[in-house]
Amino acid sequence: MSAYLLEHAWVDGRVQHDVLVELEGSRITSVTPDGDLMRLSGVATPDKRMNPRSAGDSCTRLRGLTLPGLANTHSHAFHRALRGRTQTDRGTFWTWREQMYAVAGRLDPETYYALAKATYAEMVAAGYTSVGEFHYLHHQPDGTPYDDPNAMGHALLAAARDAGIRITLLDTLYLSSGFGAASEGVQRRFDDGSAETWQERVSALSPLTGADALIGVAAHSVRAVPADALKAFARYVADGAAVHVHLSEQVKENADCVAAHGVTPTRLLADHGFLGPMTSAVHATHLTDEDVRLLGEARAFASFCPTTERDLGDGIGRARALQEAGSVLTLGSDSHAIIDAFEEMRAVEMDERLASQARGHWSAAELLAAATADGHRSLGFADAGAIAVGQRADLVTIDLASPRTAGTGGDEHTAVFAAGAADVTHVMVDGKVVFEGDHAVVGRSLDDVIGRIWTS
Amino acid sequence: MSAYLLEHAWVDGRVQHDVLVELEGSRITSVTPDGDLMRLSGVATPDKRMNPRSAGDSCTRLRGLTLPGLANTHSHAFHRALRGRTQTDRGTFWTWREQMYAVAGRLDPETYYALAKATYAEMVAAGYTSVGEFHYLHHQPDGTPYDDPNAMGHALLAAARDAGIRITLLDTLYLSSGFGAASEGVQRRFDDGSAETWQERVSALSPLTGADALIGVAAHSVRAVPADALKAFARYVADGAAVHVHLSEQVKENADCVAAHGVTPTRLLADHGFLGPMTSAVHATHLTDEDVRLLGEARAFASFCPTTERDLGDGIGRARALQEAGSVLTLGSDSHAIIDAFEEMRAVEMDERLASQARGHWSAAELLAAATADGHRSLGFADAGAIAVGQRADLVTIDLASPRTAGTGGDEHTAVFAAGAADVTHVMVDGKVVFEGDHAVVGRSLDDVIGRIWTS
Repeated sequence: MSAYLLEHAWVDGRVQHDVLVELEGSRITSVTPDGDLMRLSGVATPDKRMNPRSAGDSCTRLRGLTLPGLANTHSHAFHRALRGRTQTDRGTFWTWREQMYAVAGRLDPETYYALAKATYAEMVAAGYTSVGEFHYLHHQPDGTPYDDPNAMGHALLAAARDAGIRITLLDTLYLSSGFGAASEGVQRRFDDGSAETWQERVSALSPLTGADALIGVAAHSVRAVPADALKAFARYVADGAAVHVHLSEQVKENADCVAAHGVTPTRLLADHGFLGPMTSAVHATHLTDEDVRLLGEARAFASFCPTTERDLGDGIGRARALQEAGSVLTLGSDSHAIIDAFEEMRAVEMDERLASQARGHWSAAELLAAATADGHRSLGFADAGAIAVGQRADLVTIDLASPRTAGTGGDEHTAVFAAGAADVTHVMVDGKVVFEGDHAVVGRSLDDVIGRIWTS
Repeated sequence: MSAYLLEHAWVDGRVQHDVLVELEGSRITSVTPDGDLMRLSGVATPDKRMNPRSAGDSCTRLRGLTLPGLANTHSHAFHRALRGRTQTDRGTFWTWREQMYAVAGRLDPETYYALAKATYAEMVAAGYTSVGEFHYLHHQPDGTPYDDPNAMGHALLAAARDAGIRITLLDTLYLSSGFGAASEGVQRRFDDGSAETWQERVSALSPLTGADALIGVAAHSVRAVPADALKAFARYVADGAAVHVHLSEQVKENADCVAAHGVTPTRLLADHGFLGPMTSAVHATHLTDEDVRLLGEARAFASFCPTTERDLGDGIGRARALQEAGSVLTLGSDSHAIIDAFEEMRAVEMDERLASQARGHWSAAELLAAATADGHRSLGFADAGAIAVGQRADLVTIDLASPRTAGTGGDEHTAVFAAGAADVTHVMVDGKVVFEGDHAVVGRSLDDVIGRIWTS
């Protein structure tokens, strides 16, 4: 057993003080805020705050504000190598995609392991304790499977384990370059040829450690998965597995879908049994009112990726409307133009402010729920994302006296509207301390790995 | 004389390497990139990069990417105390303003000095070397002038000097709560009663040190300065002084102006001789095509404050259209919801991407020009914002191997699209080293000062 005394902590939907948290292995076994402790003991001694009941034992004090673990619900790890390098020309999402494909062409299981490990370490240092890796870079450059057809997936699982982050590997079906068009160029690395071959490969994927890794599935998009093949997902939806899909990120995708199928992408998914309470619609940017209704009725997750959606010029999605219809917001860093859960949280609200010219669409508490418990639930980790008895022991501590956070009140508004990834001082995942504030070492590792990718 | 060897530096509109910069006092006297050095000496020895000609003398090597000084063209220093504290309710710009007035009511020259000094120190640590302080908190709470009618202005000048940042104090005329309405409540602290009284007070303002501080002027807005009083600014415009004004930040201001005067705020300013090449239109968010044309023809600066404009739900201004019409972009952190020049630069581009669903409206070089030379020029410091002979010796160095910047290429795209304030490692202003990377001490000072304001 070990114990932590949290100076301030987000517990039961509010910031509480001097919270004693006890752990057994990877689980939280008790959570006792100072007020409860005083009530329990029946005495309120002036020195109580400095004398929790375990102070004499192995109690570690964490200064600052401790949050539950943050979930990154949409990641393409290899995009981290593109940061800063895709900003040189005018263009669109589609020209950016060409640059992204150039990196995808360079990786093999060994280099992808190294890049993903460094990227996941950046996530851990930013307070993410789980990642949903939307994985479609499966095969050799000419499309031939590796000897282990899951060599790339296994590299990602190993990278997550070695970086100390939990992972849900969302193995992604990709069959088509567009509506009715065959995969071409680097897309052959993504393409399994058929939904059946894909399913066979996925069934052979073995998480390296059970508790730290889950296997989920994804359809890349209605562009890349023909309508017939979408049916393959109905059994995963029925089983309650994590099922993800890129949805309506760009207006062109909607137009092409309507031209090919006569319905919107959301309608197409609904008609093929793809929508359910463990389905995540990633981006969900350009939706009709009926699309919003369909996602809401399915209680589907909407995985917004605001910093990427800014970067790619996707537009501002209707986050609040989705939530009010019954959908549940989660947050991902997607292309990793930025890895900063705090920026993602506030960006949801800021972007709605820009679109509406009014403030206060989302409370800080709602955005924290999206980034913690709801995000974890969408990845299949229903027992993570809260500082509560029986939950996985994830603790993310931020400095309350940095240039960003100082003077901001030290509550949930500080976390959502002031903090940055650089403020993370301590991260525990499943009871293990995986980060203790050395951001510089994380940067040096990324610098080394990405430098080698571009010069190889 | 002193000398710096810059590993990478933004010189002549591109990133150059191993740049030797020599200083005499506050001025740059020579700038020699490695390539030039080799050409001059006629030998390219393998160890050249480690042996600049001054290496044996007092040459300090600055690792990373060194930028010219960054200019913060729009600041209300006291708003820093609001960060994180105005996010609790739904509302609008106008309800936010009520919260802002609550802080304005609490300050006196002593507390304002302390708050501004800590806030300016945060700016310095973020790489800002000049600030344009849009200053309207002039008088005692009941509107009576202090014994020194410029007590508050002098507090700001002293705070800037002691924090090590150059300042242009933009003393602001405020006469009205709205079109035809008298100042009320805390607004009495802003109100000089007449343009004549204001001019008299401004003429008594004395910069504490000449080279580090300038006095400019501002009209708060067309809401707060009746049309007649706007005429008082024509002489400053004619003199080429820095003249600033809040312009069309909110749709309501435009509607009220049209109702009161039959013209847009921009047209009203143009008709009163307010627009010129040293006029800065702050925000300039909601403009008609004619407004854009008028600002462009005047070659006026457009001071965008993207992180504040997000926060207050102002909307997305037409930055590119203004630039193409002849206006010149500068950047300010305004309400200090965030103090991060890098985030302001990229936000201009990101917001245009969100509005247009296309990428590449602004190059990184253009955004750097806005944040450096153009910004300084708008504050009256035409001799700052470039690493060039004869310029003020401002050098801002960022780490290229942080979690944010690692692997991003180390050029201007890194600075604009990847870096954050936490990456600033070294700042020189006018030849003096004012920051050497200790961000923690900056945070502790803010924490102390703002804590005292809210508990007093």
